[in-house]
Amino acid sequence: MSGRGSGEPEPPREPSPVEWLRGEGRDADVVMSSRIRLARNLAGIPFPNAATREQRLEVMTLARARLLDSSQAPGPGMRWIDLSDARTIDRLALVERHLVSKQMVKGVEPRAVAVAEPGERLSVMVNEEDHLRIQAMRSGFALDETWRFIDAVDDRLEARLDFAYAPKLGYLTACPTNVGAGIRVSVMLHLPGLKLTGEIEKVRRAASKMNLAVRGFYGEGSEAVGDFFQLSNQTTLGRSEREIIDDLEGQIVPQVIEYERQAREAMLRKRRMTLEDRVHRAAATLRSARLLSADESLQLLSLTRLGILQGLVEGVDLRVVHRLVLLCQPAHLQQAAGREIDQGERRILRAELVRAALAC
Amino acid sequence: MSGRGSGEPEPPREPSPVEWLRGEGRDADVVMSSRIRLARNLAGIPFPNAATREQRLEVMTLARARLLDSSQAPGPGMRWIDLSDARTIDRLALVERHLVSKQMVKGVEPRAVAVAEPGERLSVMVNEEDHLRIQAMRSGFALDETWRFIDAVDDRLEARLDFAYAPKLGYLTACPTNVGAGIRVSVMLHLPGLKLTGEIEKVRRAASKMNLAVRGFYGEGSEAVGDFFQLSNQTTLGRSEREIIDDLEGQIVPQVIEYERQAREAMLRKRRMTLEDRVHRAAATLRSARLLSADESLQLLSLTRLGILQGLVEGVDLRVVHRLVLLCQPAHLQQAAGREIDQGERRILRAELVRAALAC
Repeated sequence: MSGRGSGEPEPPREPSPVEWLRGEGRDADVVMSSRIRLARNLAGIPFPNAATREQRLEVMTLARARLLDSSQAPGPGMRWIDLSDARTIDRLALVERHLVSKQMVKGVEPRAVAVAEPGERLSVMVNEEDHLRIQAMRSGFALDETWRFIDAVDDRLEARLDFAYAPKLGYLTACPTNVGAGIRVSVMLHLPGLKLTGEIEKVRRAASKMNLAVRGFYGEGSEAVGDFFQLSNQTTLGRSEREIIDDLEGQIVPQVIEYERQAREAMLRKRRMTLEDRVHRAAATLRSARLLSADESLQLLSLTRLGILQGLVEGVDLRVVHRLVLLCQPAHLQQAAGREIDQGERRILRAELVRAALAC
Repeated sequence: MSGRGSGEPEPPREPSPVEWLRGEGRDADVVMSSRIRLARNLAGIPFPNAATREQRLEVMTLARARLLDSSQAPGPGMRWIDLSDARTIDRLALVERHLVSKQMVKGVEPRAVAVAEPGERLSVMVNEEDHLRIQAMRSGFALDETWRFIDAVDDRLEARLDFAYAPKLGYLTACPTNVGAGIRVSVMLHLPGLKLTGEIEKVRRAASKMNLAVRGFYGEGSEAVGDFFQLSNQTTLGRSEREIIDDLEGQIVPQVIEYERQAREAMLRKRRMTLEDRVHRAAATLRSARLLSADESLQLLSLTRLGILQGLVEGVDLRVVHRLVLLCQPAHLQQAAGREIDQGERRILRAELVRAALAC
């Protein structure tokens, strides 16, 4: 990730695991991870898109000092990644790790992301749409814990940085939907049961009525591939952080978890053979394919995960499945190869990598 | 096969192998088997559809005596199967073994088929469209050998039976397309290469121009499933047996064999990964599916066969693949179960049977 654009290929290596794909913690059979993101801007400096290069540089300098200075750092061992220096595939890999937004890959200069090791449970985008976008992640269903953690980080940063804030509105942000609490709360759900029974559309409609966004694996504008869905609040104005979190934590997410578990049970009870057929074919295809697209691999990994959780597929480690979800992504695949490779060759490499990882 | 309609289920058993799925002999990589069928009628008795029950019974009596009497029998160990006595699944299994036509399953009474053991290389339908339909089969590309064999059988039968024959027309048959030599010559081709490269349509058009019929796995009216195709002559009037056989033996079939081998080589050379992907997925799906339809299993077995022949799939015995082609058919599956079972349950049983047969 720290590779420079020098053309010097990095040696193939296993990327470190990410918190949001650890697959542990409360209700992790359905909730892969919980995430809270806060939008913050420095008072007296225009938002990144309106600022001059010098002003953005000032934001970088201030943020870097506060984030990396160990006496003031919000988390231990933060790593600073300057996106201007990074290779394209390393920038895209950051998107795949959910550390950087798609928009930021080709954003303003200069821009960076600070990432806390290990596990990348805390990260801060600098000069994305807002000066700072602070993000905390936890495996499983843990919004409350995530909130307490990011709130403390926010407090420590605010003690050293002057955040733009208006008493009547709250935190000021570049996009109106974030004004106020400036918070986005989301959970990554794995809903293969509701997908198989066709009830997923009900969840979509219910979420939409409650003003929640249902997004795909890669957030805004991405399709739901592999039965992974992000559920998050849409607006923050006029609502406190606690209200937003309580809605998701206490009401909506537990209900979706319940629906998904019922769907899985119903499949096991009423259509067991269909379910067994689907998950065994998926695992066998992963173990035998010579060409795999990113979308297909994600779909097959999703079904294999379901198979393991329901006790149908044996001999496959759930952690390997989670690791592969990330490794099958295009940029991670190219990082593993140590060079840029085209889509056709990626399909071959992806299949090789999956077969090796799942070899009995 | 000799079960009576008494409702007494037969014990599950492995059906004997059939010659046309043995997959050995000349050019067996492309030509599964060669088949010649002669249509013969007894002089002075109307064709089965026009005859009275008594006349058809007379045909049965005469045919049975000539076919089973060991001193006059055309082949050793012929077995007489009265279709009126047989269970529905046993009748359908005879169709699947290519011993009886689809039309004959619900044909006139009485009707029978005499089958030479072992291997079912010779069989005679009695009271199908014609009084006698004599059929000889050989594994691989062996039209000449098949012709010499069936011609000798025909001579031996003709020495004892008075066949309807008109000097100017030749043998008289119920259907005008068979009048004359009364011969149908066909080869069962396995053409997965031409199917994958899309060139199969060229073969179809060329065959059609040469007045040859291209049929599916189960003859007239059946779709080409699993890349298996039957190529056969359409008419016989005005042409000698030798001319018809020489056309196929010397001209058309060798050309199709060449095309198919070129297509397989081209896939290996230019699209090796695609080919490997297809055949490995096919073998893995056979080994892991919990639900299999007859059509899908045939398609997967076809690709697995190609994979074995091209040296890509290891650890699967070609003979097992050939055996499964027959065992996956609905009636054989029900015979294995010892009872009639519905389509849904058949899909489960078929998958179980295939997994067991391919278990490493």
